[in-house]
Amino acid sequence: MKEISNLMNYRSCVRVVDATLRDGGLVNDFYFTDEFVTELYRTNQKAGVDYMEFGYKASREMFDESKFGKWKFCKDEDIRAIVGDNNSDVKIAVMADVGRCDYKTDILPRSESPIDLIRVATYLNTIPAAVDMIEDAKAKGYEVSCNIMAISNAQEGDLKVALDMLGQSSVDVLYIVDSFGSLYPEQIARIADTYQEFGAKYGKKLGIHAHNNQQLAFANTIEAVGDGVDYLDATYAAMGRGAGNCAMELLLGFLRNPKYNVYPVIKFIERYMRGLQAEGVVWGYDLQYLMTGLLNQHPRSAIQFTKEHRTDYTEFYKEVVAQD
Amino acid sequence: MKEISNLMNYRSCVRVVDATLRDGGLVNDFYFTDEFVTELYRTNQKAGVDYMEFGYKASREMFDESKFGKWKFCKDEDIRAIVGDNNSDVKIAVMADVGRCDYKTDILPRSESPIDLIRVATYLNTIPAAVDMIEDAKAKGYEVSCNIMAISNAQEGDLKVALDMLGQSSVDVLYIVDSFGSLYPEQIARIADTYQEFGAKYGKKLGIHAHNNQQLAFANTIEAVGDGVDYLDATYAAMGRGAGNCAMELLLGFLRNPKYNVYPVIKFIERYMRGLQAEGVVWGYDLQYLMTGLLNQHPRSAIQFTKEHRTDYTEFYKEVVAQD
Repeated sequence: MKEISNLMNYRSCVRVVDATLRDGGLVNDFYFTDEFVTELYRTNQKAGVDYMEFGYKASREMFDESKFGKWKFCKDEDIRAIVGDNNSDVKIAVMADVGRCDYKTDILPRSESPIDLIRVATYLNTIPAAVDMIEDAKAKGYEVSCNIMAISNAQEGDLKVALDMLGQSSVDVLYIVDSFGSLYPEQIARIADTYQEFGAKYGKKLGIHAHNNQQLAFANTIEAVGDGVDYLDATYAAMGRGAGNCAMELLLGFLRNPKYNVYPVIKFIERYMRGLQAEGVVWGYDLQYLMTGLLNQHPRSAIQFTKEHRTDYTEFYKEVVAQD
Repeated sequence: MKEISNLMNYRSCVRVVDATLRDGGLVNDFYFTDEFVTELYRTNQKAGVDYMEFGYKASREMFDESKFGKWKFCKDEDIRAIVGDNNSDVKIAVMADVGRCDYKTDILPRSESPIDLIRVATYLNTIPAAVDMIEDAKAKGYEVSCNIMAISNAQEGDLKVALDMLGQSSVDVLYIVDSFGSLYPEQIARIADTYQEFGAKYGKKLGIHAHNNQQLAFANTIEAVGDGVDYLDATYAAMGRGAGNCAMELLLGFLRNPKYNVYPVIKFIERYMRGLQAEGVVWGYDLQYLMTGLLNQHPRSAIQFTKEHRTDYTEFYKEVVAQD
């Protein structure tokens, strides 16, 4: 049982990362208005959020710029149009996917960029490529984190090798990512323990990015924060792919550091997130996501089910069980 | 950290209690069709659910029968019209509130009744009255549980006195109830520890009834089941007062006992729960419930906010903070 003081006091090393534009962008193809993005940036300042992730640094060779909003590409000038010189305490982050980012050319030296943190996202089978991206970003002067995705169906031995390889790199933060929303808090505790082993050995911080397929994104995040995980991803109204993420409003309500303030978050949700939902942008917990989470499957079939406005959950259940 | 086997294996002493009609009835004044109730009963059989709570044994002196559906009163003949002689493994439960039930007359001897379990619901300040109801039900031959409501704002010393008094009674199961949806899993672990102290001393089983104000009803329930709590309340599609309860579909997906089966639950939700929602019956997590949960307040103001179709969350936040 954890110490009672863990709930009453706070660890000053905790950092909250707003991933609304990035993970949320996956459900509206990154078409956020400039007003939305500007107000989100201002709200993050008022709420005490530590990092704001603007989106992806996706390759413009691979992806057609005319088919996505600008936050899939996060050109430095687009970020700068929102944040200016970013005279605030909110640090700017972007995500760079292994194999989908021209990082050598598209990520400029930090001294020329409004970006502070490069978040490298990788699967277990592309760790060497991730390390190359990490070293590139680090040499350019950035803070760097690494998200190891889909760990819920990884072998523990493979995960440990990956953590050891990343431990030897220049990365600052190692992220636990429950891509399929299939992990229970007890498993998060065990995984955090494994990450902590390498974090302590190599002097790395830890982070968590959770999905809400089983309504456990918030529960798993606060489990992790009790297990020495410092970097906590959250999104406004839990906006994110499929079942969505850990809700910012839940997380800031939980954290006891007086620098965090939930009121501006509520105000933003009332004014902007409800508007997105009214326009027909769909995300959040539903039975189809529970099913893929339960079966530890990628949510793509559930996302398709949602897109087709299907409600035949029993048929879908049979389909996903057959895929298992 | 809990044993890894806890997640892979199961404790055969776990019992699942379907509280859909009772807690769900609070949001539609217990107006369920006979078809709904009959199909729910059949579904519970197929799903392996251990107990089905039909509703309240509310006083017909205090409450006008014409203003509620019949499951607020749970006359034995109404239950019998659904279950006949209940030739199934599903046991029948009803809730009896201290001060709102004519238990001496309305609860018949078990030998004449289809009911198996009487669930006495009490606040901390009415334990002697609860004990009187417990002894009455026990003398009539029932299994008896006791829900101590609103413990999240109880003094630990008072709670221990209550548990000691109830421990000395004939009650079979002592229930942890997070009425305001304000408790975090770490607190549930600590409360379960306190309950376990008296459960072990007096040979009582433990139960949990959670609310979803902070999207923790399921997380708190599975935390408790890892802490020696056996009786687990859940409702289909989480239907229940305010933010609702622990979702049956999440809970049965989690439990590893092969007698439980989530498929019939999904089928019932698709066919019946979605229908209730389409008719305008409203329950489930929303910002107003998060706020009262966070502030450890009774959800009545949030329920009123919902009823009035208000969406001015920031105004509501100011109202509930002012009440604090």
